[in-house]
Amino acid sequence: MAKRIEGVLSPVITPFRKDLSPDPDRFVKHCRWLMRNGCSGLAVFGTNSEANSMSVDEKLELLEALVKGGVPAEVLMPGTGHCALTDSVRMTKEAVRLGCGGVLMLPPFDYKGVSDEGLFRNFAEVIERVGDDRLRLYLYHIPPVANVGITLPLIDKLLSRYPGIVAGAKDSSGDWANTKAMLDAFKDRGFDVFPGSEVFLLDGLRAGGKGCITATGNVNPGAIDKVFRNWKGVDADKLQADITATRKIVQKVPMIPALKAITAHFGNDPAWKTVRPPLTELSAEHEKQVITELKSAGFSMPGL
Amino acid sequence: MAKRIEGVLSPVITPFRKDLSPDPDRFVKHCRWLMRNGCSGLAVFGTNSEANSMSVDEKLELLEALVKGGVPAEVLMPGTGHCALTDSVRMTKEAVRLGCGGVLMLPPFDYKGVSDEGLFRNFAEVIERVGDDRLRLYLYHIPPVANVGITLPLIDKLLSRYPGIVAGAKDSSGDWANTKAMLDAFKDRGFDVFPGSEVFLLDGLRAGGKGCITATGNVNPGAIDKVFRNWKGVDADKLQADITATRKIVQKVPMIPALKAITAHFGNDPAWKTVRPPLTELSAEHEKQVITELKSAGFSMPGL
Repeated sequence: MAKRIEGVLSPVITPFRKDLSPDPDRFVKHCRWLMRNGCSGLAVFGTNSEANSMSVDEKLELLEALVKGGVPAEVLMPGTGHCALTDSVRMTKEAVRLGCGGVLMLPPFDYKGVSDEGLFRNFAEVIERVGDDRLRLYLYHIPPVANVGITLPLIDKLLSRYPGIVAGAKDSSGDWANTKAMLDAFKDRGFDVFPGSEVFLLDGLRAGGKGCITATGNVNPGAIDKVFRNWKGVDADKLQADITATRKIVQKVPMIPALKAITAHFGNDPAWKTVRPPLTELSAEHEKQVITELKSAGFSMPGL
Repeated sequence: MAKRIEGVLSPVITPFRKDLSPDPDRFVKHCRWLMRNGCSGLAVFGTNSEANSMSVDEKLELLEALVKGGVPAEVLMPGTGHCALTDSVRMTKEAVRLGCGGVLMLPPFDYKGVSDEGLFRNFAEVIERVGDDRLRLYLYHIPPVANVGITLPLIDKLLSRYPGIVAGAKDSSGDWANTKAMLDAFKDRGFDVFPGSEVFLLDGLRAGGKGCITATGNVNPGAIDKVFRNWKGVDADKLQADITATRKIVQKVPMIPALKAITAHFGNDPAWKTVRPPLTELSAEHEKQVITELKSAGFSMPGL
């Protein structure tokens, strides 16, 4: 049984060319930088990756480019959950075939107010069709975006039916009480919980969490990883306060274009600023604000 | 210039086999029945079609089956709006190539709170990439499901930039004030408004609307068409009251599985009941309720 991914995972931002096509070379380069600078894993095709703004074909091409480009498949936890059952199956199958360490699955998020039974059937159908014991499925709870959430009874039902395969969750509810309840209920059942923001990293680790999967991991992986490595140390709270402060600067402005503008600035590569509709790039004003505040705080992205 | 679609359009329910694969034969059969029984157009791959539960490939296969099966392409208004820009482009291109009378486009519905500018860029990019004057694009406003809506300023901007191509909207807000505002602002600019429920059909026609695109059109197309054909007649209000009463029976229970259960019952074809996750079939209790109430109201689906 392969070792499970733990630590800091970045939902990697996706570079687009001027014509809005995904740029595999820049993507591989950024992923390699992340792995050298604090990330233990890469949750490519997450919310902050503009994943759902790309077709399955486009994502599979990027995933193959990563593996060919020397990123070890076992650190990858690609987002493979789609509205369409057949898209989720196809992409999850491919991720397992490539040897990915896990997959992070959104629930189908088109219909609102669907039942836990319907969601159970969706995930169960994917697991059955993939039909591979190597599958490690992480459930993605992000009600602010997907609206459709992953409840504790749903986790319980999936975990009881597919122990070992249902491997954990990312909780992006932003609600620590929910993350804590998830940890308390399932951490001893082989279910690894990752808060969806480094703001909850230390609290999560102290309660039995396995790390975090966080947008800001794209630009600040080293400092976040330091909390992960030293969470039992005397200066853990101080280290946590530092990364929380950086997060707060970034999230004052729209997060996805901000991460791209920061990467463009500190990597001296303006092409990174491009986003796909329906997102829009950061306004000049917001860009100036976030860069200035980060610089004042001594922020840098060494070696980018 | 081809005549635009007017009248009653059904967002056609999609039949699935036991293994959840789409069933082209049943689909063609149902579409042909709808066209013989009151529908002027078929908004295939709408919300009630479980459209987003299918991959683009699966939808294109069904669309081709319809055209090969003798359904005239000019009555078709397939849903072609996806979260992924490239999926929307691919499917819209194919719809135009097949000669479809129009396409009904959801906005990208993953990110919430996106700007009108971002949505404008999405639709503009699709129109530019399709690059075909035959395209007739209908905007799909359905905030209860998509969350992301189509505002009047966005319509104005798109219509000003792409007159003739931006052809209208389906308003499934369920808010007559919004439909009325859309009609007042754009009905004289070559923009055809279709309420998303027959409950607003008569009001819509009196205010300059062109028909309706309604779920219940799947099972009650004849009676709804009668309102469309006779809206200036003395008994228009009586006819409207009849179809509103039928609608109210159906929408007491979950709509999509209800439409499938009704079709299964009155067409004596139980296979119709199958839905794809995350939806679940109608409970036995709800099924009994809706069928009993419809029968008491004298409802039938002749020739199905």
